[in-house]
Amino acid sequence: MSKVARGNQTSGSPLAGIILRDVTWGDCDPAGIIYYPVYFRWIDAGTWNLFFLAGLTPERLRTEFPRMDMPAVASSLDFRNPAPFGVTTEVRSRVEHWGGKSFRVRHEVIRADGAQLATGTETRAWVENMPGGRLRAHAIPDTLKQRFFIAC
Amino acid sequence: MSKVARGNQTSGSPLAGIILRDVTWGDCDPAGIIYYPVYFRWIDAGTWNLFFLAGLTPERLRTEFPRMDMPAVASSLDFRNPAPFGVTTEVRSRVEHWGGKSFRVRHEVIRADGAQLATGTETRAWVENMPGGRLRAHAIPDTLKQRFFIAC
Amino acid sequence: MSKVARGNQTSGSPLAGIILRDVTWGDCDPAGIIYYPVYFRWIDAGTWNLFFLAGLTPERLRTEFPRMDMPAVASSLDFRNPAPFGVTTEVRSRVEHWGGKSFRVRHEVIRADGAQLATGTETRAWVENMPGGRLRAHAIPDTLKQRFFIAC
Amino acid sequence: MSKVARGNQTSGSPLAGIILRDVTWGDCDPAGIIYYPVYFRWIDAGTWNLFFLAGLTPERLRTEFPRMDMPAVASSLDFRNPAPFGVTTEVRSRVEHWGGKSFRVRHEVIRADGAQLATGTETRAWVENMPGGRLRAHAIPDTLKQRFFIAC
Repeated sequence: MSKVARGNQTSGSPLAGIILRDVTWGDCDPAGIIYYPVYFRWIDAGTWNLFFLAGLTPERLRTEFPRMDMPAVASSLDFRNPAPFGVTTEVRSRVEHWGGKSFRVRHEVIRADGAQLATGTETRAWVENMPGGRLRAHAIPDTLKQRFFIAC
Repeated sequence: MSKVARGNQTSGSPLAGIILRDVTWGDCDPAGIIYYPVYFRWIDAGTWNLFFLAGLTPERLRTEFPRMDMPAVASSLDFRNPAPFGVTTEVRSRVEHWGGKSFRVRHEVIRADGAQLATGTETRAWVENMPGGRLRAHAIPDTLKQRFFIAC
Repeated sequence: MSKVARGNQTSGSPLAGIILRDVTWGDCDPAGIIYYPVYFRWIDAGTWNLFFLAGLTPERLRTEFPRMDMPAVASSLDFRNPAPFGVTTEVRSRVEHWGGKSFRVRHEVIRADGAQLATGTETRAWVENMPGGRLRAHAIPDTLKQRFFIAC
Repeated sequence: MSKVARGNQTSGSPLAGIILRDVTWGDCDPAGIIYYPVYFRWIDAGTWNLFFLAGLTPERLRTEFPRMDMPAVASSLDFRNPAPFGVTTEVRSRVEHWGGKSFRVRHEVIRADGAQLATGTETRAWVENMPGGRLRAHAIPDTLKQRFFIAC
C-alpha cells in the first residue's frame, strides 16, 4: 500500500480538481440524455481547472512559458450511466502520469448521488508553437510539474 | 426602383454566401428539434464564409489587416419553424449595411423545401486588439469593403 | 413609481434567477475571447433555471403540462465587453413580460467585477406538440405564471 | 488474406460513410486550432450518417425499432495533426465490429491534403428505453445489421 502511494507520487500528482457541471437542456439530445461530446468539453475544462489550482492561470502560463501549449494527443471516455436533463455532476481530475514530453490526466464524472457517469483520460503534449503553425514537443519543465505537488 | 437598388449598393453589398448545414442528432434538444443557440454558430460561420468568398481568408486577414478583428456587438434571430433531426438547411448571408466602424450582416436559414427557419442579423465592429486585451474601433477600410463588391 | 412597480407586476415577474458560468478554454475563439454563440447557450440555461426556481423541474413540467413545450421564437443579445478565458460571470434572468401565448425573458451576463458583458431577451411560445411534428400555441395557464410570483 | 477478408465481413460491415466538415472560427480555441471535443461531435454525426446511408432515418428507426436507442458506451480518439481555422476535412466512418448487444464504429478525420487529423472508435449499445429512464440492452437484430451489408 505504501508502495502504491509512492508509485502514485512518482508517476502522477496528488493535486486533484473538482468542477461542477449541471446537465442543461442544450447538453441533451433527442433521447433526453446528455449528448456524449459534452463530456469531452467538461474534462477539457477539468484539466484547465487543475492548472488554475496549480497557480497556472492563462496569464501566468503565457508569461512563464511563452509560446507553449498543451494540445490533447488522445482522449477517451467510457460512459457508465445515462445523465438526464437537470442532473448535477462533478468532474474530478488529476494528473495520473507525468511523461517526458506529455502527461496524462484522469477524469471522472460523478452524479450527485455518487453514481459514476463517465471515466477516462486525456493525454496532452507539451509543445512549442513554431512559425508556420507547426508544433514541436519539449520536455515538461520541472518548474511546471512541481506546482502540482506544492499546491496540495 | 433604381433608387432602391442604388440604396442597396451604397448601404450594403451584393455579394451573398451560402453554407449548407444538416441538423445533426447533437444539434437537437430533448424536444427533438434544433437547440436554438446552434443557429448562432451557423450564422457566425455564414459571416466567415462571406469573408472567404471575398478573398479574405484567415491568413489574408492577418497579413492585410494585422491585429484587426470583427467581434459581434449584437446578434438577433427570429425562429419561424422548428427544425427536426435530419433536416438539410442552407444559411444565406449578405452584408446589408456598411457603417463607419461597424457592419451588419443579414442571415436567413432556409429548409431544403424552402421554408424559412430563422432570420436575423449580426452587427460586427471593426476593432484593433490593443495591449492589455482592450479593443479600439476603427473605420472600416475601403479596401475591405470593395472586396464585397468586386467579388460578385 | 408605484405605477412602475404595478406595471412590472402585471407584465413581468419578480422571480429572478442567477447561474454562474466561467469562460472556459473551449468557450473562446482564436481571438482569445468568448465565442458569442456560447452566450445563447447560457441564457437558454438561465431560462430553464428560472423554471427550476419556480418549482417547474422537467418531471414536474411533463406531469403538470404534458406535451407542452416552450421553444424560443426570438432571441437577441447585445455584447458590451469582451470576455477572455478564465473570467467568472453570472447570468441573471427574469420574465419581463407575460403575453397571452408567449413570454419574454430578460437576461444579463455580468462579469465578476460588475461589468456588463451581454444583455438581451428571449421570447418563448407556449406550445403543444401535435402529431406529425407540428406545434400549436396555447394560452399560458395562470397556474404556470403564478409560480413565478409565489416563489419569490 | 482471404481469411482476413472473411473475418472483416463477419465482424464488421463494408458500408462506409463520409461527411464533410470545415473547421469554423467557433470550432477553434485560443491556440487557433480545433477544440478537440468538436471531433467527437463530428464522429457522432458520422455514425448517424452511416445509419442514414443504411436507410435508417430517424423516422424509420422509430417505426421499425420503437423505444430503441444506441447510446455510446465508449468513445476514444487519437489526434495526429492540428487543424487550424478554415481547413476542410472529411470524416470517414464504418462499423468495424458487430457484437451481440453492441457495435463498434471506426472513424477517421482526414484533411483535404490527405493528412490524418484524428482516428478512433465509438462503441454503442443497442438499448430499450424502459419506464423510469432505465436502459436495457438487447441483441442487435439481424434485420438491422443486414442493412449495412445490402446497402454497399
